[in-house]
This record gives sequence, structure tokens and C-alpha cells, in this order.
Amino acid sequence: MTRNIILLSGGLDSATCAYIAKEAGDEIYALSFDYGQRHTRELDAARAVAAAVRATEHLVMRFDLRLWGGSALTSDMAVPMDRDDTAMAADIPVTYVPGRNTIFLAFAMSYAEAKGASKIYLGINALDYSGYPDCRPEYLAAFQEVARLGTKVGTEGHTVELVAPLMHWDKAGIIKAGLAVGTNYALTWSCYQGGDTPCGRCDSCLLRAKGFAEAGLPDPA
Amino acid sequence: MTRNIILLSGGLDSATCAYIAKEAGDEIYALSFDYGQRHTRELDAARAVAAAVRATEHLVMRFDLRLWGGSALTSDMAVPMDRDDTAMAADIPVTYVPGRNTIFLAFAMSYAEAKGASKIYLGINALDYSGYPDCRPEYLAAFQEVARLGTKVGTEGHTVELVAPLMHWDKAGIIKAGLAVGTNYALTWSCYQGGDTPCGRCDSCLLRAKGFAEAGLPDPA
Repeated sequence: MTRNIILLSGGLDSATCAYIAKEAGDEIYALSFDYGQRHTRELDAARAVAAAVRATEHLVMRFDLRLWGGSALTSDMAVPMDRDDTAMAADIPVTYVPGRNTIFLAFAMSYAEAKGASKIYLGINALDYSGYPDCRPEYLAAFQEVARLGTKVGTEGHTVELVAPLMHWDKAGIIKAGLAVGTNYALTWSCYQGGDTPCGRCDSCLLRAKGFAEAGLPDPA
Repeated sequence: MTRNIILLSGGLDSATCAYIAKEAGDEIYALSFDYGQRHTRELDAARAVAAAVRATEHLVMRFDLRLWGGSALTSDMAVPMDRDDTAMAADIPVTYVPGRNTIFLAFAMSYAEAKGASKIYLGINALDYSGYPDCRPEYLAAFQEVARLGTKVGTEGHTVELVAPLMHWDKAGIIKAGLAVGTNYALTWSCYQGGDTPCGRCDSCLLRAKGFAEAGLPDPA
């Protein structure tokens, strides 16, 4: 049984990763972040998903990126609404959080080394988030080198492997693959806002709706 | 005037970096971490150094690596004492904190991007800390690639540059270079323990004492 770290945001993508790891029979150590995001609804979702995949441990690392902001998710900047595909693909959106995935991966790498884990699963995806530099394969390869060179386990030949199964899938493909391994999407939360129900208008809600529509399935959440 | 980030631990090495950046006429944004280390004496030292180099801003990012431990600095494990040079060079010591420099650099990269800073100064050194994988030039080069590929500024051709001026110097050389730019070592704190005075017996105290001895100078702290 391989001990693995799963970066779990509570969203659709990372939940799919968690179920893929569960299906593979791995022992799951889930890691989430309370980093000063607009709301912590997604952390409730992460806890539900961690329980559903019977994670051995689920930790929440707390820090506050509002200390320097620089993103609509960590400051008072407005979240963009009602953008079509062209607008979303045009540039890096204000919801980009400077260095966020590198911070997440750095913590995951530390956690993996401390626990003797072999792999880190993360739900990054180069298609839907083409605007995010830290969701691309070349970025992931660069961080893989950091994990090899910057850890004690790496110098001993046991580099923690970064696994991004969703990297080249579109949202409909992710949903279909996720359902095939039993992912309960009713537990997940994608909306950037923190309302009682998803806003249905932010990029994240729109991408999710498009994914379920293209997969020809209803969204259970 | 170049706006730069300085990773400031409060120790001798990072203080030297801060004074080197000050001498270069840079605008200094200092960043320290309260990460669950054994004591926060070094944060008081960092605040004193930040004031001495007239930092525009000094932020302390808080998180708790005791969540998973894995080091004598973030758990109840004992700090090694009275080790000679041979023992220190023999292997990666228990004071190694899994992934710590990668976490520090990830936050610094985020801070740099949010503030529009050009450089990140860090006091890592490959000689005295030959046992730490994340203090080597090849590690730093790997993280430089992460900074190029994983940020919005990087994709726009303005990659944040990692600057490690002390990388190839020994402790005596660091102290001499630091004094040449006016570093006030009385403000710094190196000891791994959190006593009223430095223990004089941990690796960090011993390296510091050796540095001042080889430089033929008294330690003002």
C-alpha cells in the first residue's frame, strides 16, 4: 500500500484526484489550506471528501496570503463574473494568486518527506486553466526537480513523485473519469464566492456547469 | 532603486544579505517566518535587523510546521550538541526541516510577485551547511526555473531573480564581507535553542563561534 499525499481543495478536480488515488488502493494523507481565501466553504467540502475516501489523516495548514494580497481571492478585488470562453482564455485572470500552487506544493513536499510518502497527487489541469502559469506541465516538471534536489529523501534516491492525472483532460473528461471511480461530486464546492449556494456566474462555476453539460450529466451539488 | 525581497531569519547569514542589499541601495522588503520553530528569539533579531537596514516593510508569515514535524526544530526531538566538524559533515542533521527552504522561497516568490519586486536575497550557503540539500547551487537553479515558469511575471519575461551572495563563502568570509558593509552582528541570533543567552553548543552556535575565531574577531552578540 503506497502512502500518498493528496492536495485537497474541496473542488471538483482535487476530489477526482482523491477518488483516483483511493481506487488505486493508496493510503491517503489529505492536505488542505486555509490561506485567507474569500471563504472556507471549500474547506468543509475538503473535509467531506477526505472522509468519503477514508483518508488516514486530513490536515489543514493555515497561513494568510492577505498579508500581501495580489489576487481577487486574497483581497477586496472583485471576482470576474459572466465571462465567456474567449474572455476566460484571453489572459491570466485576477483570481490568479501569486505563487499559490508553488506554496501548496512546497508544503506537500515537506509533508510527504515527514511522513515517508511516495507521491503527491494534485488536480491541476492545463486546459481549463490555460491562463494560470502554475498549472502547466513544464511548471510541474520544474517543481519535480526542486523535489529531487531540495529534500533529504531526494538526495537518497527516493524523490517524491508529483502526479497530476487531470493535466490534459477537459472538465467533461474529468467528470466522466471521476464518476467511473465513484467520485461523489455532491460533496464538492467550486464557487469562488462564499454564498449559501454557488453563484453560478464566476469562472469556476461556469467551467463546472460547462463540464457537466458537455458530459451530459446533471450536477449533483 | 530596485525593490527586493530579503528572507530574514534573524541569523548571521541573512543579516549579512540584508546589509549587502542595503549597501547596493535597494529598497528592502523583509520577510520572516514564524513556522513553529523552537523559539521566536530569532524573530526579535529579524525585527531589529529589518529596522537597522531601514526596510520599507517587514512581514512575518505565520504557519505551523509542527503539524507534521519531522525535524528537531519543529518537534520534541533533541537538538544535537557539541558536534565536531567531522560529525557535522557526516550526514543531514536532525535539524534539517523537510522542505523548509522551498516553503520559504515559495512565499518569497509570491510576495515578490505581489509587490513587483525584482530579486529575492537569501542567505543560503553550500559550505557550512553541506548537509542540507536545499542549500546547494543546483537546488537554487531548480527553484529559479520554478520562479520563471510558475508566475505571471515569469511568463511576461520578468522572472524574479534569486540572489544568494553567500553561497560559496565560509563563515569567516561571510563575517568579513558583512562587516565591510556595516553589518551589526550584535543584533543577530544564531542559537537553535531559545535560552536567554546562546547555548554555545548546538551546530549553529559552534559554526558561528568558528567563523568569528577564523576571522580573528570577537562576536559582538
